[in-house]
Amino acid sequence: MMTLNKKILGITLAGTLAAGSLGFTAANEKAEAKKAKPQAQNVIVLVMDGVSSSTTTLSRWYKGGPLAMDEILTGGVRTYSAESAITDSAPAGTAMATGNKSNDKFVGVLPETVSSPGLDSSLADQPHKPVANVLEGAKLSGKATGIISTSEIQHATPAAFSSHASHRGEYDNIAEQQIYQDIDVVLGGGKDSLTTGTAKNSRKDGENLVEVAEDRGYDIIESREELLNSRSSKLWGAFAPAALAYDMDRETTNPNEPTLAEMTKKGISTLSKDKDGFFLMVEGSKPDWAAHANDPIGMISDTLAFDAAVKEALDFAKKDKNTMVIALSDHGNSGISIGNQNTSADYPSIPVSEYINPLKEAELTLEGAMKQLKPDQSNKLEVAALYGIKNPTAEETQAINDSKNLAKTLVELLAERANIGFTSGGHTGEDLFMYSYGPGKPIGFVENTDIAHITASAMGFDLKELDKKLFVDAKTAFEAMGAKVSVNAEDKNNPVLVVKKGKTTAEFPVNKDLAIVNGKEIELDSVTVQTKDRFYLSKDAVQLVKKSK
Amino acid sequence: MMTLNKKILGITLAGTLAAGSLGFTAANEKAEAKKAKPQAQNVIVLVMDGVSSSTTTLSRWYKGGPLAMDEILTGGVRTYSAESAITDSAPAGTAMATGNKSNDKFVGVLPETVSSPGLDSSLADQPHKPVANVLEGAKLSGKATGIISTSEIQHATPAAFSSHASHRGEYDNIAEQQIYQDIDVVLGGGKDSLTTGTAKNSRKDGENLVEVAEDRGYDIIESREELLNSRSSKLWGAFAPAALAYDMDRETTNPNEPTLAEMTKKGISTLSKDKDGFFLMVEGSKPDWAAHANDPIGMISDTLAFDAAVKEALDFAKKDKNTMVIALSDHGNSGISIGNQNTSADYPSIPVSEYINPLKEAELTLEGAMKQLKPDQSNKLEVAALYGIKNPTAEETQAINDSKNLAKTLVELLAERANIGFTSGGHTGEDLFMYSYGPGKPIGFVENTDIAHITASAMGFDLKELDKKLFVDAKTAFEAMGAKVSVNAEDKNNPVLVVKKGKTTAEFPVNKDLAIVNGKEIELDSVTVQTKDRFYLSKDAVQLVKKSK
Repeated sequence: MMTLNKKILGITLAGTLAAGSLGFTAANEKAEAKKAKPQAQNVIVLVMDGVSSSTTTLSRWYKGGPLAMDEILTGGVRTYSAESAITDSAPAGTAMATGNKSNDKFVGVLPETVSSPGLDSSLADQPHKPVANVLEGAKLSGKATGIISTSEIQHATPAAFSSHASHRGEYDNIAEQQIYQDIDVVLGGGKDSLTTGTAKNSRKDGENLVEVAEDRGYDIIESREELLNSRSSKLWGAFAPAALAYDMDRETTNPNEPTLAEMTKKGISTLSKDKDGFFLMVEGSKPDWAAHANDPIGMISDTLAFDAAVKEALDFAKKDKNTMVIALSDHGNSGISIGNQNTSADYPSIPVSEYINPLKEAELTLEGAMKQLKPDQSNKLEVAALYGIKNPTAEETQAINDSKNLAKTLVELLAERANIGFTSGGHTGEDLFMYSYGPGKPIGFVENTDIAHITASAMGFDLKELDKKLFVDAKTAFEAMGAKVSVNAEDKNNPVLVVKKGKTTAEFPVNKDLAIVNGKEIELDSVTVQTKDRFYLSKDAVQLVKKSK
Repeated sequence: MMTLNKKILGITLAGTLAAGSLGFTAANEKAEAKKAKPQAQNVIVLVMDGVSSSTTTLSRWYKGGPLAMDEILTGGVRTYSAESAITDSAPAGTAMATGNKSNDKFVGVLPETVSSPGLDSSLADQPHKPVANVLEGAKLSGKATGIISTSEIQHATPAAFSSHASHRGEYDNIAEQQIYQDIDVVLGGGKDSLTTGTAKNSRKDGENLVEVAEDRGYDIIESREELLNSRSSKLWGAFAPAALAYDMDRETTNPNEPTLAEMTKKGISTLSKDKDGFFLMVEGSKPDWAAHANDPIGMISDTLAFDAAVKEALDFAKKDKNTMVIALSDHGNSGISIGNQNTSADYPSIPVSEYINPLKEAELTLEGAMKQLKPDQSNKLEVAALYGIKNPTAEETQAINDSKNLAKTLVELLAERANIGFTSGGHTGEDLFMYSYGPGKPIGFVENTDIAHITASAMGFDLKELDKKLFVDAKTAFEAMGAKVSVNAEDKNNPVLVVKKGKTTAEFPVNKDLAIVNGKEIELDSVTVQTKDRFYLSKDAVQLVKKSK
């Protein structure tokens, strides 16, 4: 089910895609014919950010029963980036969304450095060039699309599935592209990046994306209740200025926020009304943040919340029988282990309870507990108790009272009590489990880039072909047809590519899926992207100018 | 192909098994009929001891190409024991070999403590009772059998697949049972436990197992060359007094030892001559030992050596098409991570080379390098260089020269150089990858106990039924038929169970598959086992007395 506007557009785009796919030479038609039939009507990719194997194991013991993911463990995934043994979320998201290994900070664009063994160095031939993602392909195939996260929706992983930027920190660009991507369901945090204001991530470009969203037919929702009650087929849920609370803290600190499972369930029920099927990306964002802080409570809290979202996806897929579900982690984090220096000798006889019971004492995650710290820090022991350091020993009490970095002290004390080890405050480079279900599902040992190619193939399109269609180098393409290309940077935060050919002036504002041709607004196949002073736009934008008189 | 002796026996045993299986009530016959047909003619289980995901990932980078295991990654495995979140090798081996979670130190016997959530506490109802393993089942099904390891062959994992003891340290009992199990191929270390002598693991019971092995038709081989040249269908390879050298050190320190891949290849070519098929267990034992020492070189060395053995198994299975191969680790170890405190901030741009190049400098594992240390420790810097600490900084030089524990200093310096983290000197509790191939192979997420049940089922037998057949409580069974039971402990290291009924005196020496009935020696289905002062023997032993006049 789509809004009328999108429905009409959808038909046009579907027509365009068909023409595009079949309008090539006979040789290409043959290649098209060879392609496997679409295998899955719907695809749901769920990413748990920064979850190592120890984290899922610990979460299962904490829960006291099997995880939804346990049922669909089917293989493993390699996670390294084009330049590093250990990936960050931006290149990991880019790999899973576009099928290309990339560089640190890069979101949906090709790398400039390729040093990891076994990769083709030509991958760096067009650094910063946007590459199509599976959501864009699903949309052009007529499917409904959605992205969901517990972080700001502009954060690296959801960004990689919905935008293109040289740096994951470009929230202005990412948020604007997301709005103009015509994604049907967008649920998460990141309200700050929709309008101007004084927050760190408020918009610098003067745009009001809430107005744009309203114009584009979104039901803008800001609370759990609004989410559950909305009947719209186009949802923009911005439930927090930045990230949502940890699942464990919600009731205490942010009771109006929905759970990841609720967002997932609503996302699926909304998107599944589209008869052409849907693509949905769901991220459990904050196990990663907790891991950076070496906070096992936050890691467990949001791994279990993620697992509950996987259950929603799986429940739907089992009934639907035409839905592929993939769940995986994008990289390890923190070097967490069940067992540490305490257990070096006696591990073979230490029961599960000696790891889990100390964790069960925590009522809030580190973030949640630290929020209760008074400005004068007079309640440090209270905060420690909320984090599970109850009945502290004399030594623990002294460590807490003397601490200059309470968060660090608390996680160290809890790890000591719970016999948990950590090696790092950063990500780690080990292979990770992959979970999958449904027709066409990946199995075995794959590269993170395979996730993109497998989901694309399951939905019946090829990402390389899509690249050629959606991201053409504007200057090269327009100059080849004798057009004159310039950039109107009068409003320096909102540059516009200006193309003149004969009597035609076509303007392409950056981050939007729009062309203004001799004053008339025309919707394009995809957003126009500027990276490193180069503009990239879709082939239909080039055709618009080529066909003009 | 079997020796004549075993061949005759084999037929007898096969007959016995058939009678046993079908001789029950009609209801049981029905249950039997329902059982799935055997799925695989041959089963090869390969265990890499103590290998976490980070270890395989690091090994792959070190190798510079894919692992054989990569091709057959099919799921994951839970490893906890009956009493602990983190297992040791004895209960892990017992789980994989017998299908029962057990306790620390327990080899092929039931636990006395069951505290892990989700387990049935009745598992502890018969503590220390021997339970049948898949090798015993394979043997009774007429298959050839083998065990291979790079440790002493009496070490926990191979022991769990071939013997029954309350403590993994009972090398005397384990070695004796192994000899009397009539295993066709036994290759590894542990020569010390075959005869009396002055070594730590020399026999205390005065038995000469080399003579027994010769009597039983084994070709006893002690070098790589003898292994490769032997044409015998019954091989006992004892290549080292205790464990074999690390793969990386072999050429330097023990050039006459075979590789794990060579042992595996020879094992398969020998066993595969049996028309009834075979069961083979292969352990790469020493990644675990290196992990305990936090030595990444030893971990990589013997993980790659293990992978080469997997390749041998896989190459055979691919050609044979009737062989199930399972490879897996029995538990994590050391909390190793790619990335540590050095990389907490910059991990997203640190290339693979900054982890691998420092490791590539090592010419020997920690064990190999430390063997080069002179008694007066005058060559510490030379030893450090052999371990990869070349061109040491002033700080490193001082650390080495001042070290009171050179091994510890060296691994700390190397981890620092290679950006590797460790959390523990003990095992860890995370879920691990499972690799499998061939008919009936396990896929998805399994318990370590499932490995036993799946391999048993693939070979067409049920472990619970086998338990009833092979390990009857002697006192209970004999007293129920009015026999008188006593123990002859004249030779206290070689106790004999003595059963008198009417004119019959039957003697059952412990650890042997023999009965002496009125002075006449009779071979039994399985070895007689004594744990905690109780004797357990096979049902055919009970029948022998029952039928006697």
